[in-house]
Amino acid sequence: MSSPPSDTLTLPLTDRQFLEPHLPPPIQSNNPSKDDDHSSDLLPFTTLTFATSLDSSLALAPGTRTILSGPQSKAMTHYLRSRHDAILIGVGTAIADDPGLNCRIAGVGGYGGQGLEGQPQPIIVDPCARWRFGADAKILELVRQGRGRAPFVVIAEGVEPAQSQKEVLEGVGGRFIALPCVNVKVVGEVGTMRKEFDWRQLLGLLRREEGIRSVMVEGGGSVINSLLQPQYQGMVSSVIVTIAPTWLGQGGVVVCPPRTRAGLAVGRLRGVKWYPFGEDVVLCGRFGEGVSE
Amino acid sequence: MSSPPSDTLTLPLTDRQFLEPHLPPPIQSNNPSKDDDHSSDLLPFTTLTFATSLDSSLALAPGTRTILSGPQSKAMTHYLRSRHDAILIGVGTAIADDPGLNCRIAGVGGYGGQGLEGQPQPIIVDPCARWRFGADAKILELVRQGRGRAPFVVIAEGVEPAQSQKEVLEGVGGRFIALPCVNVKVVGEVGTMRKEFDWRQLLGLLRREEGIRSVMVEGGGSVINSLLQPQYQGMVSSVIVTIAPTWLGQGGVVVCPPRTRAGLAVGRLRGVKWYPFGEDVVLCGRFGEGVSE
Repeated sequence: MSSPPSDTLTLPLTDRQFLEPHLPPPIQSNNPSKDDDHSSDLLPFTTLTFATSLDSSLALAPGTRTILSGPQSKAMTHYLRSRHDAILIGVGTAIADDPGLNCRIAGVGGYGGQGLEGQPQPIIVDPCARWRFGADAKILELVRQGRGRAPFVVIAEGVEPAQSQKEVLEGVGGRFIALPCVNVKVVGEVGTMRKEFDWRQLLGLLRREEGIRSVMVEGGGSVINSLLQPQYQGMVSSVIVTIAPTWLGQGGVVVCPPRTRAGLAVGRLRGVKWYPFGEDVVLCGRFGEGVSE
Repeated sequence: MSSPPSDTLTLPLTDRQFLEPHLPPPIQSNNPSKDDDHSSDLLPFTTLTFATSLDSSLALAPGTRTILSGPQSKAMTHYLRSRHDAILIGVGTAIADDPGLNCRIAGVGGYGGQGLEGQPQPIIVDPCARWRFGADAKILELVRQGRGRAPFVVIAEGVEPAQSQKEVLEGVGGRFIALPCVNVKVVGEVGTMRKEFDWRQLLGLLRREEGIRSVMVEGGGSVINSLLQPQYQGMVSSVIVTIAPTWLGQGGVVVCPPRTRAGLAVGRLRGVKWYPFGEDVVLCGRFGEGVSE
C-alpha cells in the first residue's frame, strides 16, 4: 500500500472531542437500511459551517478566496467533511474557488484508506447552470485520482446544461439533478429575479432519492444567508462558525441574512458553546426551541 | 452610611481575572503626579470595547438600543468603566440611548464608596453640537444624585452651542471643550461633508489638558469604525469585544471599518484571547506588531 499523499491532514483527538456533540451520529456503513424511511418529511442532518472575520465577512470581495483562519481550522473542516455523507456549496463558490470538495483527513479513501470510504458526496447548487467547468477542474481531477467522489450539480427544472458539460461530468461518474425552483425578487434591484430552490425540497430530495443522511453546507454567502432565514432555520441541525480576529472592512462578502420582520433579530443560537481554537474561536450551536446550556 | 442603590452591580473575581492583562494599570490615586509628562505625544491608555451580533451589528437600526449580551456582560462593562479615568461615546449614541455613562459596580462613589471615587469622566464627542439634552437627561440626573461625574462635550472649534445647553451643562459642573476638526467626505453621498476630529489630537488633549490617563471608548458605530481605521489603530491600547450568538440581519448598525487600500484587510488583532462568558464570548487583543500569543 502506498503512503498517503503529502497534503494529508490530521486533527488531534483533543480537537475532535469538542465537535462530537454537534455532529451527526457516526455513519454505520454496515447498516445502510437502518433508517431508510421514505416519509416526505425526512431530511438529512444538516450542518451549516463557515469561517468569518469579526465583521462577518467570508472574503474580501465577491469571487475572491480569502484565507481567514489558521491551519488548525483547515484540518477541522476536513474532519467535518469526513463526518458527513455530502458537502454542499453554491455555484458562486464553485466558480470563485475551483474547490476540491474532497476530504484529506488521514484514513479516508485516497488518503491512506480504502476506495472512497469517508469521502463525502460533493453537491453544487447551480439553478441556472452557470458553472462552466473544464475537464481540468480540481474537483474532477481528484475524482480521476481516486481521491474524491464525482459531483452532483443541482439545476432548475427546464434548464438545459451544455452538452459538453454533461459529457465531462458524466464521464467521471457525476451528474446533473433537476429540481423545481422558484423565482424570487432580488432585494434592491428592481425587476431582477433570481432562481432559488426551496431548501426543504432540495434537502428532502437528497435524503430520499440519494440516500444522503448528513450534509455539510459550506458556503458561500448566498447559500448561507438563505439557510439562515427564519423559514429555513428549522432544517439546520447544527451550526459551526469559526471567527478569526480580523476586520476585513467594507466591501466584503458578508454573512448577514435578510430580515423577514422589521425590528426583529433574524435568529439566535441555542445550546451555545465557544471553543478557542488557535487564534480563532469556534462557535457551535443550533436553532430552535429548548433550554440554552 | 446608607446602603448602595438597588441597581448596584458586582462582577465575581473569576470574571475579573481574565480581563486584567487587557486593562490599564490600576489608578494610583495617591500619586497623581506620577506621570504628568507634558510631551505632546503623550496619549491615554485607550480601550476600545463594544458588543456585537455574529453579523457584526451593534443594534437593529440606527437610533435604537438593542440588548445583545447577557447580564454578566453588563456587569463587565461597569467593571471596565471603574478601571478607566474616562468613558467616551459619540453623539449618535448619546441621542439614541440617553445613557447614564456612570459606573454602578459596588464600591465606587455613589454605590457604596466615597464621593465620586472610581466614577469615570463621561466624554461625548459631538463636533456639530447636535446633542440636545434637557436638565432631565439621565446623565445629568446621576450627577445631581452624586452617582456620576458631569460630562465633557467635545465640539468643533467655531461651533457655538445654544446658551440654554451651556447653562444646563455648566450648572452641574460639566462643560463644552472646543477642538479643531476636519471636514471629511461622506462615502457614497456626493457633496456631503462630515466634521471629524483627529483622534491623536482628541486623545492627546484629554491626556494633557484634563489629566485623563485612560479612556474606555464604548461606541457607537461611527466612533468605533473611525478608530478601527489603520491610521488610528496605533492609538488603541486594548480591544475588548463581546460577541452574542445572534444574527440581527440586514439593516443593523454594523461595525465594518472603511478600507484604506483595496483588497487588503483593515486590521488583525494580536495577543488574542477568547473567553466564553455566559452565552457570549469575549475577545481581548491589541493592534500592532508583536508575537501573537
